[in-house]
Amino acid sequence: MMHHDLTVPSILERAGKYFPRKQVVTRVPGGVHRMSYEKLRQRTCQLANVLEGLGVRSGDRVATFAWNTHRHMEAYWAAPSMGAVAHTVNIRLAPDDLIHIINHAGDQVLLIDEDLVPIVEAVADKLQTVEHYIVMSDESTVSTNLRAAQSYESLMERASTSFKSPILDEHSPAGLCYTSATTGRPKGVMYSHRAIYLHTMMQCMTDFIGLSERDVVLAVVPMFHANCWGVPFSSAMVGADQVLPGVRPDPQAICELIESERVTVALGVPTIWVGVLDHVQRSTRKYDLSSLRLVVSGGSTVPISLIEAYEKVLGVPLLHAYGMTESTPVVSVANLKSHMHQLPDAQKMQIRAKQGPTLPGLDMKVVDESGNQLLWDGQQQGELLLKGPWIASEYYNDPRTAETFIDGWYHTGDVVNVDEDGYIQIVDRTKDIIKSGGEWISSVDLESAIIAHPEVLEAAVIAIPHVRWQERPLACVVPKEGSQGTLTEDEVLHHLEGKFARWWLPDAVVFLDEIPKTSVGKYDKKLLRDRFHQYVPNSSESI
Amino acid sequence: MMHHDLTVPSILERAGKYFPRKQVVTRVPGGVHRMSYEKLRQRTCQLANVLEGLGVRSGDRVATFAWNTHRHMEAYWAAPSMGAVAHTVNIRLAPDDLIHIINHAGDQVLLIDEDLVPIVEAVADKLQTVEHYIVMSDESTVSTNLRAAQSYESLMERASTSFKSPILDEHSPAGLCYTSATTGRPKGVMYSHRAIYLHTMMQCMTDFIGLSERDVVLAVVPMFHANCWGVPFSSAMVGADQVLPGVRPDPQAICELIESERVTVALGVPTIWVGVLDHVQRSTRKYDLSSLRLVVSGGSTVPISLIEAYEKVLGVPLLHAYGMTESTPVVSVANLKSHMHQLPDAQKMQIRAKQGPTLPGLDMKVVDESGNQLLWDGQQQGELLLKGPWIASEYYNDPRTAETFIDGWYHTGDVVNVDEDGYIQIVDRTKDIIKSGGEWISSVDLESAIIAHPEVLEAAVIAIPHVRWQERPLACVVPKEGSQGTLTEDEVLHHLEGKFARWWLPDAVVFLDEIPKTSVGKYDKKLLRDRFHQYVPNSSESI
Repeated sequence: MMHHDLTVPSILERAGKYFPRKQVVTRVPGGVHRMSYEKLRQRTCQLANVLEGLGVRSGDRVATFAWNTHRHMEAYWAAPSMGAVAHTVNIRLAPDDLIHIINHAGDQVLLIDEDLVPIVEAVADKLQTVEHYIVMSDESTVSTNLRAAQSYESLMERASTSFKSPILDEHSPAGLCYTSATTGRPKGVMYSHRAIYLHTMMQCMTDFIGLSERDVVLAVVPMFHANCWGVPFSSAMVGADQVLPGVRPDPQAICELIESERVTVALGVPTIWVGVLDHVQRSTRKYDLSSLRLVVSGGSTVPISLIEAYEKVLGVPLLHAYGMTESTPVVSVANLKSHMHQLPDAQKMQIRAKQGPTLPGLDMKVVDESGNQLLWDGQQQGELLLKGPWIASEYYNDPRTAETFIDGWYHTGDVVNVDEDGYIQIVDRTKDIIKSGGEWISSVDLESAIIAHPEVLEAAVIAIPHVRWQERPLACVVPKEGSQGTLTEDEVLHHLEGKFARWWLPDAVVFLDEIPKTSVGKYDKKLLRDRFHQYVPNSSESI
Repeated sequence: MMHHDLTVPSILERAGKYFPRKQVVTRVPGGVHRMSYEKLRQRTCQLANVLEGLGVRSGDRVATFAWNTHRHMEAYWAAPSMGAVAHTVNIRLAPDDLIHIINHAGDQVLLIDEDLVPIVEAVADKLQTVEHYIVMSDESTVSTNLRAAQSYESLMERASTSFKSPILDEHSPAGLCYTSATTGRPKGVMYSHRAIYLHTMMQCMTDFIGLSERDVVLAVVPMFHANCWGVPFSSAMVGADQVLPGVRPDPQAICELIESERVTVALGVPTIWVGVLDHVQRSTRKYDLSSLRLVVSGGSTVPISLIEAYEKVLGVPLLHAYGMTESTPVVSVANLKSHMHQLPDAQKMQIRAKQGPTLPGLDMKVVDESGNQLLWDGQQQGELLLKGPWIASEYYNDPRTAETFIDGWYHTGDVVNVDEDGYIQIVDRTKDIIKSGGEWISSVDLESAIIAHPEVLEAAVIAIPHVRWQERPLACVVPKEGSQGTLTEDEVLHHLEGKFARWWLPDAVVFLDEIPKTSVGKYDKKLLRDRFHQYVPNSSESI
């Protein structure tokens, strides 16, 4: 068989040839911006020429600091097309982390959305490697104090629409993304052309996301999250239209886009889908969302109630996908196997809220603390380890690699069980699970139960130190509007009684205005643990 | 990213773990044989142990000479699992070709279906490399004069159900199949693990075959044709049930299997689908074929009338797939793009009868006789060249490699045009096209027109030498039952008038009892050309 590398630019080349008139649609002030794949390919060539002109060479890092827009999309393709690396920087990082990752990655060029320029200006004097700041806007002039800043469009104007990609090894790097680690500095994951290509094919397989040329795909997931979950690539491979929600999309903007662009598949984190559902239910405006065939939710676990609500209110399946920055990112999706369709609805919902079986191409095992492999019985709990062509083998230039990549396996840090059908279910994070008297208590299970209380908006359960039991659970609860000051500790604990063994119940409930969150919107339990480290419940001997 | 090879055994391993109760169902005398993927995996391990015990080592060739049965399936997986090569031998080869390819491949073991043993016995004294003849049947004894023949089941009985695959390089060989070349000896194509794996993923992508766990897949295509079109692998990857039609399946057997096993996807050559349709229409028995969602037809071009008939009579889409032994084998499928669904029915049918756009991962170009690349305008005709990770780079140990694999491109020998949507349409084979006075006449187009005559059963158009025009077309026609002796040359030519330029019309029509066919059922035009080489039409100056 021929030696033929699997490369990122070949995907866009195909889209430009076979689907020249299919579109990338971006929400912009007052309407949408439309660009065909043919045009995207031309502009990608222009950008590659611009970057080459600025001195970017094979292996160099080109960073983006941007919303989901067509220019961000151009950068997604241009950098790998020239053998460079597209480093998508999280726009919600704390300044210290921002400085760290740009310096650590050694980014040479930084492409910045106009409205995000002030964030970069504030840290620019600490950025050691950036030689070119390029401001992305419709204007061909820039006004910023960034050293030698240039306008994206003025550079593009002068560039040729023809660019020939160099011969690329499929194992060479194409993209870079940093994790939003809550412990220590973010860690970098370098994606190869091969990893992205195989992940792309997988995403178009019927049993996983099943993307098709017929689809109109809305990525609400930010493009600075792990390859935007791969959908810019998979949509292009099959010629699906893409819809990008632009700057600061709110639930109303998302609903309007789904309606006006006849979106068929929409992807985002659960908080987005909670917000959209809430908006649909409260809004006096009736949206026509009938074009939707699938909503994909990932990034954190999905409550069953949300899957049910999407089924009932919108009549659309909400598919739970599981993955992480280290896995390009999709590891599994929780579709039902055919024999499961006959199960009672409640049981089907429970399966759909699991993480699902790993995708073809990936290997997994679950091990206890001594490294013994555990059975698929839905009971035994251990850490999930992964292997596969789109799983990272290291953190980029980072000694912490040794803690996570051991004997050829990636240690996810997720405590899971696996049922007889091979469906993974996350019990907790290894660092979040509560170790009480030698037994484990799942913070995730307690949170799911508390959030089901009608007066609760958010709930995070953390471990607090305990003299006798080593650790005990503490529930941090945000009441809904109207229940603030009236919802009581007793009421919350009473709500949990009977659902768990008595010793699982939290030693105390504290009420907060808000659960602190990380830059990607996950509960920042490290911060909570620090804050409540000294907390002494009244009833600490009650178990 | 991890270095993680894409290997064939990992596909079955996944099927065994995630879909242990899904089945491989084989038609056997008096009923069906059922085997779960769990059992298939165990028996594959047993067979690997048997082969290892017989001295088969990494890279050795294990040949099969068999129908589509569960034991053939076991061999499909066992050989690559141990790093050996599964060589699927065409059971319809002429004795000379059979001897040639087994010797040329250097097959060490030959696995033979019981009823095919006499064919092998007749040539066994000329087979130079085969050390072990293994007879596949339910019996644990054998009765044959083959030297040291052994019974498959008696060997299996003693073998362990556990086998650990060696570490396999994805570029190493997994399968071998010989073309059914009509010119010279068959040529061998060696498939790598990587080629098969990528082809498998592609086949499960929604826009191509879209195989799913929900499917029940009937491969009527023989398992000795190019990897059985890949479906044993793709079905296993997603956990679809597989149905194998066993020994000498006829249309009735196929209809019964579709009905009883609730087949959703069935794959075979056009002559199979002509036969099935004919049987359904003539049979007094009414079959329930409502489970079918897709019929895939490949191996030769599909008449529009057949696609229409499947739509009308069975209400099922007939998808035309294009490929060859050299391409693992699928190159393209003729699905409609979404914008085409609004076209008039007749136009849609014309598109669906084309070969379609090449699959993601493959590169193509069309060149004229000087090697100049031609436009996608639906007009310009040239040879189709292919490149890609599941396209062969050579013929196995064959000097004819140099004629076909040139400058990194595989020369298909198909003369095609490509329309603006990128849909390939085969005009002819380079060796079958008729070169008349410097212009080209498509034998395929003339055949399609002749076959549409209600009294014609089969038609093949070939070039015969001509003093003035170099070549001229001769039509070889088989009239339908009842029209033999009454259908005339004038009637056939009259039927063609107005449909083609005058100089395209055949110089003569000869009536035959049958068109000779190759071992895979294609018209043997080489034989016809030899036979009519001296033929002098009465009206040879008529153009």
